[in-house]
Amino acid sequence: MAVNEVFQYSIISALMDGVASNGLPVSDLVSHGDHGLGTFRYMAGEMVILDGKLYQMKSDRTVTPVDTSPASDAVAPFAMVTRFRPTVTFTAAFADKKALFAHLSDHFPDSRNFFLAIRIEGVFKGITVRTAAGQSRPGEGLMEVGRNQTSHTFEQPVRGSVIGFRSPEYTMGISVAGDHMHFINEDRTEGGHILSFGTDGDVEISAAQISRWHVELPTNDPDFTKAKLEGDKEGIAVVEG
Amino acid sequence: MAVNEVFQYSIISALMDGVASNGLPVSDLVSHGDHGLGTFRYMAGEMVILDGKLYQMKSDRTVTPVDTSPASDAVAPFAMVTRFRPTVTFTAAFADKKALFAHLSDHFPDSRNFFLAIRIEGVFKGITVRTAAGQSRPGEGLMEVGRNQTSHTFEQPVRGSVIGFRSPEYTMGISVAGDHMHFINEDRTEGGHILSFGTDGDVEISAAQISRWHVELPTNDPDFTKAKLEGDKEGIAVVEG
Repeated sequence: MAVNEVFQYSIISALMDGVASNGLPVSDLVSHGDHGLGTFRYMAGEMVILDGKLYQMKSDRTVTPVDTSPASDAVAPFAMVTRFRPTVTFTAAFADKKALFAHLSDHFPDSRNFFLAIRIEGVFKGITVRTAAGQSRPGEGLMEVGRNQTSHTFEQPVRGSVIGFRSPEYTMGISVAGDHMHFINEDRTEGGHILSFGTDGDVEISAAQISRWHVELPTNDPDFTKAKLEGDKEGIAVVEG
Repeated sequence: MAVNEVFQYSIISALMDGVASNGLPVSDLVSHGDHGLGTFRYMAGEMVILDGKLYQMKSDRTVTPVDTSPASDAVAPFAMVTRFRPTVTFTAAFADKKALFAHLSDHFPDSRNFFLAIRIEGVFKGITVRTAAGQSRPGEGLMEVGRNQTSHTFEQPVRGSVIGFRSPEYTMGISVAGDHMHFINEDRTEGGHILSFGTDGDVEISAAQISRWHVELPTNDPDFTKAKLEGDKEGIAVVEG
C-alpha cells in the first residue's frame, strides 16, 4: 500500500456485536502499515503500532511487544493502520481532547470529510487510559466488554507517544468517527486507549490527511458472516470515543 | 487491483449533496476494473461499464460509448467498479427484483455482510429504467435531480446485460445498500438505472462475493471538501434503490 492510505480490517460494528474470536494475522496487518491501532483476539487489551513495532497493552497494566513474524499466532479482529508519512508537524499545548481537535482542524482546515493519521510525542498530563480486559465469553459485545475495562489515570506527567486516526462522521459504524487514539509511554511499559489527556507545555504533533481507505472484511469467520452489524452509533461513541 | 475487489470513487452521500461538478477521469476509473456503474459530470445520465467498455446512457434515450483513453475529458463524480471474475454462474427466471435478490441469496447464503458483483445476460421483460437528466444547476442534489429523471418502460421483451453490485446494509450513505443495477440492451443503444424488471424464462446470472473495498475520496474538489455528507439514508433508498 502506498504511504498515507488507511488499511482497515473488519468494521467497528463487528466488535460491538462481539466478533473477536478470529482476526487478521498481525504479520499481514503490519504489511499494510507501520502506524496504527486495534485490538486482539477476544478483545484482550489494546493494540498500538508505531514505527512498525506492535505492542499489546493489557488490563493488568502490562505492555508486551508482539511478534509480527509469520510465526506469530497473534491476530487483530479489528485494526486500522497506515504507512505514516506526516505532511504537517507542529508544536502546541492543549488542555484536553477538544483543544487538540481544534489544533488539528486549524492545521487541516479542509479535512472534515477525510481521515487524519496522527502522532503526538511529548509529555502528557492527566492522561487517563482504558485497557479492555477482554471478553468474559466468546461473542460478548464491546459495550459489555467496556463495562469490565480497567481505566488508569497517570498521577504524574508522563512522556510517551500517541498514535491515532481521525475518521469522518460518515464512516461511523464502519470506523470510529472522530479522534481515536492510543497511548504508550516512552519506556513502552504502560499505555492504553485514551479517554482523556492534556499537556502542560508544547508537544510535537504530526499528521497527514488521507483520502484512500481500504477495508478488508473477515472471510471464513462465521461470527462475522452471521453478525447483525446494525451499528449502534451512540454505543460506539460511548465506548470508543 | 486484484480481481473481485470493489473500487469506489467518492461516496453516494456526496451525490445527494450535489457534488458532481468534478470527478475521477474515466481513464483512471477503468484502470481499477472492467465492470461497474456510476454517473457523469453534473449527473448527466447513467454510466455502465462492461467488459472494460464504458457507456453513457442519457435521458434523451441515446447511448454513447465513452472514450476511456487519457485524452478523454469524461469524469465520474461517483462510481463503483471491479475486475469481475464470477465465481458462481447459474440460470434462473425471476418475476421482479425481490425474486432476483432471493436467487442471489440462495447462491451466496453467507453474503449479507459482503459485497456482490453481479452480471445478468438474457431477455428481460417489463424492464423500467431511469436516466438522470442531470443537474439543472451546479450543486443540485440527487433527490432534486431524481425528480427530473426520465423513466422508460420497454414494451417488448429486450435482450441485454445487467451490471450491478449488492452492498451490505452498513455501507448505506457511502455506497448504495442493497442491489444497485444498470441495464444496457444488446445493441448498446438503450438503457439506464433499473427501477424494476423481470424475466419470462431463464437468464444467465453470474456473480462474485467481495470482501475488499477500496474507497477513494475526491481531493482538490472544494464541493466535496465542504459537503455536509450527512447521509439521507431514506432518500438514497428512494432515489437509488
